[in-house]
Amino acid sequence: MVTGSHEAIPDVLADRYASSGMQEIWSPQAKVLLEREFWIAVMRAQRELGLDIPLEAIQAYEDVKNRVDLASIRARERLTRHDVKARIDEFCALAGQQHIHKGLTSRDLTENVEQLQILRSLRLLRLKYAACLYRLSGRVAEYRRLAITGRTHNVPAQMTTLGKRLAMFGTEMIFAYRSLEDLLARYPLRGLKGSVGTQLDLLTLFGGDTAKVDALESRVADQLGFREVLGAVGQVYPRSLDMQVLGALCQLGSGPSSFAKTLRLMAGLDLATEGFREGQVGSSAMPHKVNSRSCERINGFQVVLGGYLHMAGALAGDQWSEGDVSCSVVRRVALPGGMFAADGMFETFLAVLVEMEIFPAIIDAERDRLLPFLATTTVLMEAVKRGAGRESAHAAIKEHALAAARALRGGQSRSDDLMTRLAGDPRIGLSSAELASLLAADERFVGAALVQADAFVAEVAGIVRDQPEAAKLAPGEVL
Amino acid sequence: MVTGSHEAIPDVLADRYASSGMQEIWSPQAKVLLEREFWIAVMRAQRELGLDIPLEAIQAYEDVKNRVDLASIRARERLTRHDVKARIDEFCALAGQQHIHKGLTSRDLTENVEQLQILRSLRLLRLKYAACLYRLSGRVAEYRRLAITGRTHNVPAQMTTLGKRLAMFGTEMIFAYRSLEDLLARYPLRGLKGSVGTQLDLLTLFGGDTAKVDALESRVADQLGFREVLGAVGQVYPRSLDMQVLGALCQLGSGPSSFAKTLRLMAGLDLATEGFREGQVGSSAMPHKVNSRSCERINGFQVVLGGYLHMAGALAGDQWSEGDVSCSVVRRVALPGGMFAADGMFETFLAVLVEMEIFPAIIDAERDRLLPFLATTTVLMEAVKRGAGRESAHAAIKEHALAAARALRGGQSRSDDLMTRLAGDPRIGLSSAELASLLAADERFVGAALVQADAFVAEVAGIVRDQPEAAKLAPGEVL
Amino acid sequence: MVTGSHEAIPDVLADRYASSGMQEIWSPQAKVLLEREFWIAVMRAQRELGLDIPLEAIQAYEDVKNRVDLASIRARERLTRHDVKARIDEFCALAGQQHIHKGLTSRDLTENVEQLQILRSLRLLRLKYAACLYRLSGRVAEYRRLAITGRTHNVPAQMTTLGKRLAMFGTEMIFAYRSLEDLLARYPLRGLKGSVGTQLDLLTLFGGDTAKVDALESRVADQLGFREVLGAVGQVYPRSLDMQVLGALCQLGSGPSSFAKTLRLMAGLDLATEGFREGQVGSSAMPHKVNSRSCERINGFQVVLGGYLHMAGALAGDQWSEGDVSCSVVRRVALPGGMFAADGMFETFLAVLVEMEIFPAIIDAERDRLLPFLATTTVLMEAVKRGAGRESAHAAIKEHALAAARALRGGQSRSDDLMTRLAGDPRIGLSSAELASLLAADERFVGAALVQADAFVAEVAGIVRDQPEAAKLAPGEVL
Amino acid sequence: MVTGSHEAIPDVLADRYASSGMQEIWSPQAKVLLEREFWIAVMRAQRELGLDIPLEAIQAYEDVKNRVDLASIRARERLTRHDVKARIDEFCALAGQQHIHKGLTSRDLTENVEQLQILRSLRLLRLKYAACLYRLSGRVAEYRRLAITGRTHNVPAQMTTLGKRLAMFGTEMIFAYRSLEDLLARYPLRGLKGSVGTQLDLLTLFGGDTAKVDALESRVADQLGFREVLGAVGQVYPRSLDMQVLGALCQLGSGPSSFAKTLRLMAGLDLATEGFREGQVGSSAMPHKVNSRSCERINGFQVVLGGYLHMAGALAGDQWSEGDVSCSVVRRVALPGGMFAADGMFETFLAVLVEMEIFPAIIDAERDRLLPFLATTTVLMEAVKRGAGRESAHAAIKEHALAAARALRGGQSRSDDLMTRLAGDPRIGLSSAELASLLAADERFVGAALVQADAFVAEVAGIVRDQPEAAKLAPGEVL
Repeated sequence: MVTGSHEAIPDVLADRYASSGMQEIWSPQAKVLLEREFWIAVMRAQRELGLDIPLEAIQAYEDVKNRVDLASIRARERLTRHDVKARIDEFCALAGQQHIHKGLTSRDLTENVEQLQILRSLRLLRLKYAACLYRLSGRVAEYRRLAITGRTHNVPAQMTTLGKRLAMFGTEMIFAYRSLEDLLARYPLRGLKGSVGTQLDLLTLFGGDTAKVDALESRVADQLGFREVLGAVGQVYPRSLDMQVLGALCQLGSGPSSFAKTLRLMAGLDLATEGFREGQVGSSAMPHKVNSRSCERINGFQVVLGGYLHMAGALAGDQWSEGDVSCSVVRRVALPGGMFAADGMFETFLAVLVEMEIFPAIIDAERDRLLPFLATTTVLMEAVKRGAGRESAHAAIKEHALAAARALRGGQSRSDDLMTRLAGDPRIGLSSAELASLLAADERFVGAALVQADAFVAEVAGIVRDQPEAAKLAPGEVL
Repeated sequence: MVTGSHEAIPDVLADRYASSGMQEIWSPQAKVLLEREFWIAVMRAQRELGLDIPLEAIQAYEDVKNRVDLASIRARERLTRHDVKARIDEFCALAGQQHIHKGLTSRDLTENVEQLQILRSLRLLRLKYAACLYRLSGRVAEYRRLAITGRTHNVPAQMTTLGKRLAMFGTEMIFAYRSLEDLLARYPLRGLKGSVGTQLDLLTLFGGDTAKVDALESRVADQLGFREVLGAVGQVYPRSLDMQVLGALCQLGSGPSSFAKTLRLMAGLDLATEGFREGQVGSSAMPHKVNSRSCERINGFQVVLGGYLHMAGALAGDQWSEGDVSCSVVRRVALPGGMFAADGMFETFLAVLVEMEIFPAIIDAERDRLLPFLATTTVLMEAVKRGAGRESAHAAIKEHALAAARALRGGQSRSDDLMTRLAGDPRIGLSSAELASLLAADERFVGAALVQADAFVAEVAGIVRDQPEAAKLAPGEVL
Repeated sequence: MVTGSHEAIPDVLADRYASSGMQEIWSPQAKVLLEREFWIAVMRAQRELGLDIPLEAIQAYEDVKNRVDLASIRARERLTRHDVKARIDEFCALAGQQHIHKGLTSRDLTENVEQLQILRSLRLLRLKYAACLYRLSGRVAEYRRLAITGRTHNVPAQMTTLGKRLAMFGTEMIFAYRSLEDLLARYPLRGLKGSVGTQLDLLTLFGGDTAKVDALESRVADQLGFREVLGAVGQVYPRSLDMQVLGALCQLGSGPSSFAKTLRLMAGLDLATEGFREGQVGSSAMPHKVNSRSCERINGFQVVLGGYLHMAGALAGDQWSEGDVSCSVVRRVALPGGMFAADGMFETFLAVLVEMEIFPAIIDAERDRLLPFLATTTVLMEAVKRGAGRESAHAAIKEHALAAARALRGGQSRSDDLMTRLAGDPRIGLSSAELASLLAADERFVGAALVQADAFVAEVAGIVRDQPEAAKLAPGEVL
Repeated sequence: MVTGSHEAIPDVLADRYASSGMQEIWSPQAKVLLEREFWIAVMRAQRELGLDIPLEAIQAYEDVKNRVDLASIRARERLTRHDVKARIDEFCALAGQQHIHKGLTSRDLTENVEQLQILRSLRLLRLKYAACLYRLSGRVAEYRRLAITGRTHNVPAQMTTLGKRLAMFGTEMIFAYRSLEDLLARYPLRGLKGSVGTQLDLLTLFGGDTAKVDALESRVADQLGFREVLGAVGQVYPRSLDMQVLGALCQLGSGPSSFAKTLRLMAGLDLATEGFREGQVGSSAMPHKVNSRSCERINGFQVVLGGYLHMAGALAGDQWSEGDVSCSVVRRVALPGGMFAADGMFETFLAVLVEMEIFPAIIDAERDRLLPFLATTTVLMEAVKRGAGRESAHAAIKEHALAAARALRGGQSRSDDLMTRLAGDPRIGLSSAELASLLAADERFVGAALVQADAFVAEVAGIVRDQPEAAKLAPGEVL
């Protein structure tokens, strides 16, 4: 028997990857406290609006609200088989009162508190994502001029700069960031709606006074920090909201994930590594290895987010009449799971942005070796400008490029052999000297790369101006 | 051998379910034409910006652009194994010219044209969705007062009205509609960016004149109807855009899908049917059946959309360096598939909204039978107002309600037995007369249902004011 | 600040739903111990096959293997950023030796140990599933004769028996059970293959002696309980194995999930409940409610399993060369998650099978009310046997059935009105007396239902003969 | 307006990628014919078992069965809104008879015919997969000895051979192939079960004679080629069967997909291409490019299959009582879609296996450059054999390897620098001469690669012995 084997199995995403800030939002203890504060807020507002709830009763609840004993609550749940009833009973027993949850149904409590957890999580992620953009823009500025072999279909295509490549991932991130802002601006609270959404019990409590019930709902929404409250709902808020939230996380993850995949490819060409901390071990067997473990993890998180989106998606459009909780276990898994995974992804991404190493000497060597091939579109354009037919010149260049590549792959020639071949072909109509001067104009081969990189840096600066804390956020310690 | 067996296998979603408007956007012929118009637009702009392209050449392309011969293009593709090159060759051969596609790479053509298809599809769906909201609001108004047994967990909970129930699904729809509007307002074009996103070849064509290249891109974007153009991209636009588009379709589908599921449940209780057209056959074996086939289909479409979101989601975050086309077959399937499925869903939903039948006599009978049970929360509230402890009254009511239900289920009593039991219990403290007068106040049991229904109708009116065509759209013929 | 807020966030599936048996397999402590036993087994076999490893060294490891200090291991991992190296260092430091992991790479350890966890989990689930089949067959036997309104498209179709309905879900389960047995019979171990699958380091250790390396691998596989070992693998075993395992769980879940959905529907018609334990609370607001919370949970688990299948599926076909660990975080989440969810589902299903309540009085009343409609296909068959054309009789019956239904729904008639209508129609050719005697032959309307129910019970008896413990397994306590 | 724009939109997977054999199984015309043959077979058997069906009537159906007019059927469906009823009416009108479909419900027809399509598709895919294995084994044999740099985490790890690498993907394929065989051996027919699965109408037709109904079902199953028939089912067969079928396709796709991903990576290092046919165009802009378009397509198909599995998975566990057809549109999309995608994937894979090019000169150069690093684990093993502590030697080697790599990346040294560094370190204890002789023993670095490659070739030979046609199958023409 193992020492300590009776401990609970920890949530692996929370435990290994998520920040303490995100853990705070979703810990079972924190949730119990959040619920109690919600109940107290409702009681206070109910009292202010005329219900007969003694101040001493409210104080009695206040006095015990921090005494969160999960084991005791669990024991009650075993009896009642109803989780909210168990938490009501526990809180009332501690306080020696029966004044909470008046006119409410379970979902008036849990839906609103969960939406609060979601809202806070999204705000935390927004900040962290802005921090990622900030660090990324630093790298873009650093490498704005470093010419590198651009690749499509994983083979050399044309030249670009490393700064522009990084800005490309950043451009996707900015779009996702703006989508998150749209969502945050509109994310609505379910509100206090009762069992089937008609507010019947609250209306009964307030003698049918609609204005008072509206006032109660507004006060609670304000206090939770929501600007919008849904109108006609049932027992639950529409589950497509959860799907949209998880979808937003997947969208946020897309740019970092493509970045990570590309860095893994660059590591395979020895152009870069994600960095290697003092003491780190690459492989227990192969001591020389520098594995892209953090980048692989980023890609893994994207898959995990996809799985949680799958779960949330299966609940959207599956509401029966005024509602049900076939969603209960699903949301217990997918909502915190998605938040932990996104949080872990951005933490990891931040760390990679800080620690990654670029090897300009290798990048230069690759580019010089491939330059004659990368320049073929420029040759094509120049030939067309001088009157060659586009399609015949294309055919001629392709013929020579393939022959040159074939010779290279057979180990029979060097890459500059291609220019010699092109110079001799009348279909193209460019002399050896003209071709040589084309190749020498190295800077122009990166086209608008610098302009784009700089525009990206400027746009991120605007985002950071709005969220100055983003510039200060450092990566936490990554396992 | 079957007659006609050599016909192509049709796309089942386009063929059986999608409207002709949506088919127009995605037919292979329409796409070829769209591409040719794109090429001509680029040529015109290039000529205006100074490139040496003869007017007669442009005219030659204009003259043949409608001659779309898919078989000939296919034969060319078999040779080149490159679909865009095949379409370039075909168009040039028809026109006897070599002036299109200058400074462009394949993706400058296909990405932008596909984004145009997406944009037009989303606009069509927005209109159709507004039409669904319009028809739904008509039903909400019609049934705003019809009291019906509200159900949670599929069992009777409290009373609501049918109009409010329908408004509940509509509230989810409005939120999804607003999200689509956000997306449409921001959906950006990739633009003319070249092979690796640096605009190298266009810059070469224009002698390095960045302003001219920018002008060219802007003119093309304007003409396609896009307000935003992405900055730093690679060969392709970020694939998370496709995921967001498919995610938006799933979100739009959620409200109609929950409506459909609920109508299937109501049909099981004989409270409603989705309607039954003259001549329709419910079952080839059981002639009396009225199956909810259209509602089931709506639910099926939601599943299909989920599958396409899965596909699009797998491409997001999987870009290698400046891009690749591992996405090609996936997008050929998922993008039109998603649009056809959403279109088919909304067409079907419209038809159900028009044709569905409600049976008030059955609804009334169910409600009357269940009223004593539905009123228990009101009894609880009244008891609490008169000084009973909430938890002890709850326990007492539960005891009696379960006993009454048990007797009913054993066939031994009638439902009004419950009120007799409650009247006798001092823990509750309400007399038989007080209870009877509670039950008689039938109207109040629906709480704020009417207020919510009316608010929904008003909000939809605002949407239709902005899109007046939505009010005129009638459902097409549903298979 | 909350009391106890520094505890780790527990895995919600393990903590709330999974059995202690399943938790034992996947707890972090148990895994460390499993790895240490694996290392010791390899050392012993290496020593027996001639390597110079002192017996005292092995004993030193044995002596400390139970001292599992997760915090200390975690501290080491923070330094090395390599989880396996951290666990090697910890074990060696405890033992004061450096003899484990010789000739192995990390994956020789982790892949094999994880496969062992998977194998043990699948065996546990097989037993539990057999127990579900056993309990289900008891219910089938109990209700084999209870005639009930069969429904398709959720509306009354023909009569069946409740026993046969339950056997229907059981038939799907048996097929899934057989698929699991196929998988268990063939599930192969990766084996000791080294960094890239060539066994290089073990061959080096054993001086190139292939036979010794094979013997070492076989001994370890035997000891772990595997019959098959994969041949040519890379660093990892093929990830489609994980997908197949998760797929098997989804398949196992399908029958219970359809059962649960159907019981939720039956509860909506008041024909059954999933049971209600002493003290249980249905709703914190509506004391009379008996919610199908366990059945909803079963449906929720099916969605959760689908999400984990999504994750595992994304890894299949994504291996780069000899392997990578972009899968690492994904498998940490999806493998235990899937096992906990399946375990929780079967536990919940067992409980429902034991506790569910059936209300024959209500079932009888529904059946009697609908009998004239349910009998229409029999009327059709009898008409055809007496010479009526199938399609004309079908049209006639449909006409009357719809008219009768319309009258009923308007509250204007009783259901026996249909038989009167049919008797008068010459297209059908059956007299009132003939129709009455048809309806009276109540027993025959269930067709082969009893035969099928009994065949199912017999087949389950065979399964339980092979796994006698299945008959003894009682449901654990469900939250 | 475009010429020919009124043609139906073709199914893109069928049209562009699937073989004609697979198209034959799923074309709408073929399905109508299949259904008619099914009806005729049932009539014949019914007549033989005593029903009064005139031979001339059967002949009348036979005479017209090939007259498949989809437009006429579609017109009928518009009226009846019931697809099967439309096909019954059409067939009866053509034959001038009313004898088909006696005692059957729609699903007795469609479920069984669809299962037949599935079975035939799986058999076709099995053959094609065996052909892929056969071609792959040819490549394994060809390259069994070609030493290549093995990679894990995409960075050089140890040496392997190309033949063994290919066998690695093949090993996964063989496991998937065996799983498919398990499934094919057990795949069961729903059978003739009637509306709710009780066979009521057939029993009525045969005067309650269970033996005759069983005989009828058996004859039909035999004729369709099924060995097993399900017992207790409802209106439909369990939808988890579809999920298992789609899951099997994903599993089959995993090996080819990992192969394709690896070939794309190898192309990025210029070690291989997937081949380039005469006339093929790599890029419309960059004439020299050889893109891995077929390999990318294979990866794309795997994603598409995942989407269809998602759809099928959502139906499993969602059966309501005796059944419904919320699955209808889903299965219309996912079943043929999955079969076309798998078929297209294996066709593409076959073509790549035939056409791919390997560049040994580049492979040799890469390996020689990296050899000192690849040999570090061997150095470690030798050091340990000579008495060094495993962990201290590991630390020493890592120190030198990282330093050597750093120097290389800075452009300051050559790769053989590493051996010089190692020779000087007493913690390792190997002289310069010992190290040199280690490196020279080049052959041994591939470990058991050849053994594994040969074992794979032998296993495939056994499969092809069972399916000799697999050896003859050539790839169709790939777009």
